[in-house]
Amino acid sequence: MTHSQRRDKLKIQMRASGLDAMLVTDLNNVRYLSGFSGSNGALLVFADDREAVLATDGRYRTQAAEQAPDLEVAIERAVGRYLAGRAARELGADVSTLGFESNVVTVDGFDALRGEVEEHGGKTELVRAAGAVETLREIKDAGEVALLRLACEAADAALSELVTRGGLRPGRTEREVSRELEALMLDHGADGISFETIVASGPHSAIPHHRPTDSVLADGDFVKIDFGALVAGYHSDMTRTFVLGKAADWQLEIYQLVAEAQRAGREALRPGAELREVDGAARRLIADAGYGDHFGHGLGHGVGLEIHEAPGIGATSTGTLLAGSVVTVEPGVYLPGRGGVRIEDTLVVGSQGAHATGVADLLTRFPKELAVLP
Amino acid sequence: MTHSQRRDKLKIQMRASGLDAMLVTDLNNVRYLSGFSGSNGALLVFADDREAVLATDGRYRTQAAEQAPDLEVAIERAVGRYLAGRAARELGADVSTLGFESNVVTVDGFDALRGEVEEHGGKTELVRAAGAVETLREIKDAGEVALLRLACEAADAALSELVTRGGLRPGRTEREVSRELEALMLDHGADGISFETIVASGPHSAIPHHRPTDSVLADGDFVKIDFGALVAGYHSDMTRTFVLGKAADWQLEIYQLVAEAQRAGREALRPGAELREVDGAARRLIADAGYGDHFGHGLGHGVGLEIHEAPGIGATSTGTLLAGSVVTVEPGVYLPGRGGVRIEDTLVVGSQGAHATGVADLLTRFPKELAVLP
Repeated sequence: MTHSQRRDKLKIQMRASGLDAMLVTDLNNVRYLSGFSGSNGALLVFADDREAVLATDGRYRTQAAEQAPDLEVAIERAVGRYLAGRAARELGADVSTLGFESNVVTVDGFDALRGEVEEHGGKTELVRAAGAVETLREIKDAGEVALLRLACEAADAALSELVTRGGLRPGRTEREVSRELEALMLDHGADGISFETIVASGPHSAIPHHRPTDSVLADGDFVKIDFGALVAGYHSDMTRTFVLGKAADWQLEIYQLVAEAQRAGREALRPGAELREVDGAARRLIADAGYGDHFGHGLGHGVGLEIHEAPGIGATSTGTLLAGSVVTVEPGVYLPGRGGVRIEDTLVVGSQGAHATGVADLLTRFPKELAVLP
Repeated sequence: MTHSQRRDKLKIQMRASGLDAMLVTDLNNVRYLSGFSGSNGALLVFADDREAVLATDGRYRTQAAEQAPDLEVAIERAVGRYLAGRAARELGADVSTLGFESNVVTVDGFDALRGEVEEHGGKTELVRAAGAVETLREIKDAGEVALLRLACEAADAALSELVTRGGLRPGRTEREVSRELEALMLDHGADGISFETIVASGPHSAIPHHRPTDSVLADGDFVKIDFGALVAGYHSDMTRTFVLGKAADWQLEIYQLVAEAQRAGREALRPGAELREVDGAARRLIADAGYGDHFGHGLGHGVGLEIHEAPGIGATSTGTLLAGSVVTVEPGVYLPGRGGVRIEDTLVVGSQGAHATGVADLLTRFPKELAVLP
């Protein structure tokens, strides 16, 4: 889908909500609707046929022209304020409505927008339109899925090479493993990393979000690795847990349990499923085994231009799963002081073509059987 | 200075502004005042002797207890809302004032805070307190300067090693150079990188913020490198520009000009100086030489827990330079289609000890003479 087609979808939604224009200030939303990926920018979209206006500062003059050749680019210092004033001028003397992202615009920022609109004498009313673009982004188009697939493939290839070349072995530090894995993702085509790589060995594996330290991997350790590759702004997200040397019974038990819960979660990824039921499908297994208190986070989340985006899949989530959304499934069991297991995939919730069965398409393909590494 | 001493400074400021409590939701501000560095947290500080409360979610239970052992840690889902309600309860039935960061809290977030305060029946009024903590952060204490120094040393050492081992030579790509430099920063003690490394060769050097590509470095190119190391949350920032092979006259001319402007900017870094005068000290030289239109950004900015923080040093900045602030000085001249030069240091604005002369202390020590690399 082109950026222009995405803006057309937004226009339909705007007209349904009675918005004459919309000021988009969230940078991921700006990128989604225009292609512009700079660190400062805003977009003004009109509900009628008027073309959108992209505003950014002088540093991005060339980049904006290249990335959004179909749009007028305004070079301005205060991009949001400029576009609010522009909207007031263009919408003219009639009472009109300008949507803004109330989940993004700060209290001070709102005052500035309102001041600008008033200064331009427009009868423009600022209207909350939180999440309008995020809702569109929840369903990925073919181009987005292709980029997510590339990101997941880079991560898969990097982890395979790390394991094949013996990079996961007793004596290395968490930090060494993390650096090597990140370098391998770049070697395999990533533009960058999705988030700070988690490499957590031994008791550290019981900490859901552990940052790599100089701790040394040892025989008998769980090694939990949560990482992702970034390709053209799109994030992959995968967790695998290994055992070094020999797996103890308690390790086999919780690995098996988490693997079963993860499979149940994946199988629950059907379009239309209640989000909390998807979470429940995995969580019940863990709770029934007596480890409910040791799985303290949600089952998964959407992935795209952000590493965490809609939908959230948790015990208290509301709403249903949409066909074409891309989500993670990542149950875990964490035993403080001993160790923990998380297994996470990124998947496309499917309803078409090869996915007509409703089974989600797996983007992260690295094996999930417990690998006991020498 | 301990985190508790920093909170005491905030309390003095709060009492002066008539705030009974303050809700800190900016994560860098939370880190500055508490030591907690997780990705979700908020802090409630009371103006009186009551101890502050840190709120975060279950993922960070262990980390919060370790990083902020002197504080009560509340594990909550919606950290800001919880603390707003807590403030309303603890401040009780009298009319009281709760400061919030109106430059950080979104319009929707504010509604949630207000709803929570009202629900707790408090007569607590929410009061804008934008920038209260940022103002404290502008003057760095000894511990912060030590960390910034380490970050700058890691960057210096990485660039030295890159140049010494011949890493900057015709035939390599911008991306290769950038990856090697980033790896070297980690080798030299950095926890991470400050921001995406800029390696811009040939005509790309005329783009102020260029992202590394597969373009190949060639004889006669300017190579502009803007990069930084991250140590314990503190950022370094340095730019150096090299020439490969032989420097043409136009290259020598603009390099010399930028170097002189940069020196003038550094020498203007005296406590009490008007910020726009500091910018002017460098900008005048470039304008007088006829290149004023080719220096389209401000002269510098503060550096600390953020890569860009107060003070901004530009042509329209207001206010004066404070002793103990840490800032960059980074003039540039960019000739579209040909090439550009930027030279940037990070410095401590001094007024004490060895710096009693008022000359700023240079943290980035890599030489600034034009290096023509073979």
